[in-house]
Amino acid sequence: MKLYGDSQSGNCYKIQLVCAMLAIPHQWIAVDILAGETRSAAFLRKNPNGKIPTLELDDGRTLSESNAIINYLAADSDLLPKDTFTLAKMQQWQCFEQYSHEPYIAVARFIAKYQSMPASRQAEYKAKQSGGYLALGVMEQQLAATPYLCGDQLTNADISLYAYTHVAHEGGFELERYPAILAWLGRVEATPGFIAMA
Amino acid sequence: MKLYGDSQSGNCYKIQLVCAMLAIPHQWIAVDILAGETRSAAFLRKNPNGKIPTLELDDGRTLSESNAIINYLAADSDLLPKDTFTLAKMQQWQCFEQYSHEPYIAVARFIAKYQSMPASRQAEYKAKQSGGYLALGVMEQQLAATPYLCGDQLTNADISLYAYTHVAHEGGFELERYPAILAWLGRVEATPGFIAMA
Repeated sequence: MKLYGDSQSGNCYKIQLVCAMLAIPHQWIAVDILAGETRSAAFLRKNPNGKIPTLELDDGRTLSESNAIINYLAADSDLLPKDTFTLAKMQQWQCFEQYSHEPYIAVARFIAKYQSMPASRQAEYKAKQSGGYLALGVMEQQLAATPYLCGDQLTNADISLYAYTHVAHEGGFELERYPAILAWLGRVEATPGFIAMA
Repeated sequence: MKLYGDSQSGNCYKIQLVCAMLAIPHQWIAVDILAGETRSAAFLRKNPNGKIPTLELDDGRTLSESNAIINYLAADSDLLPKDTFTLAKMQQWQCFEQYSHEPYIAVARFIAKYQSMPASRQAEYKAKQSGGYLALGVMEQQLAATPYLCGDQLTNADISLYAYTHVAHEGGFELERYPAILAWLGRVEATPGFIAMA
């Protein structure tokens, strides 16, 4: 099994974290987005959408989208709730992550950390702040009520949202405003098999 | 079971379509986003993220995010693949829809159709075109190879992507460039139980 990714990407880190927690052997293949490697003909055959992470099974089948990949890898583990409604809640949080959290928090982080805040993107960076804080507020409300996003157990919803939340300060977000999120970050980090982002 | 939504929203239409195909009885409650109804205290108790669609079960539990809702409603039907890898592919396409398709095609449609293309959003409308065409190209490539997005059978991946693809022309996208997409739209529309968007 090959995993194509960039170790500085939170989306790729989700998969590294699940592989570590579940002890899933894999070959990591670093892909340089900035050098255009995700737009090469060879890579587009693996993922026509030209994005990492992308998983390639030993039989050649490929799978993309971070949340789809981690749910596939964790299919028979406790990271996926057995109850149908709780499983739907997990997917609700993963959709929330991709639509209401990542486009604000991960993009603000990218502009600040990897692009060193160019003048041309400062307005966009500022505009990302309110959406990111809205998302953190929604998480705080849930995590003040339950130890993990879907209740009493760690699930892939927590993996998906841990990835960019724990580095949100790199996008300018003040996590110290959110005590329940801070306590939850600690619970995720105390999980057996946890590894830090590279 | 109550469904809170706006019948002009493709995200809400996904749920109406699954309910029609699977003959799931429900009470539809129209929510006026532009009047701020998703930001009321009563609605925020149902969905702290303040978005429609939101599902409320008879026991009071709630679920949001269109793709999570339709997967929950279709849990025991043929709209969800039984095979683990195909199920992951379905989720891959649903993530693609929310991240690489909807933010371009649905937003361009919203600006053109519902906001009547205000001068203040014309640049954003134009910027949405290239991303939308990229997404349509990815779909065309798959649908030239298989009748449905995950292979030979209609799944929730098709429901999720039908919702905004079939009205993409309202966002300025020329669907006639994509013969495989056009044929697929016809296949979805010929499915027993299909209903058109209001």
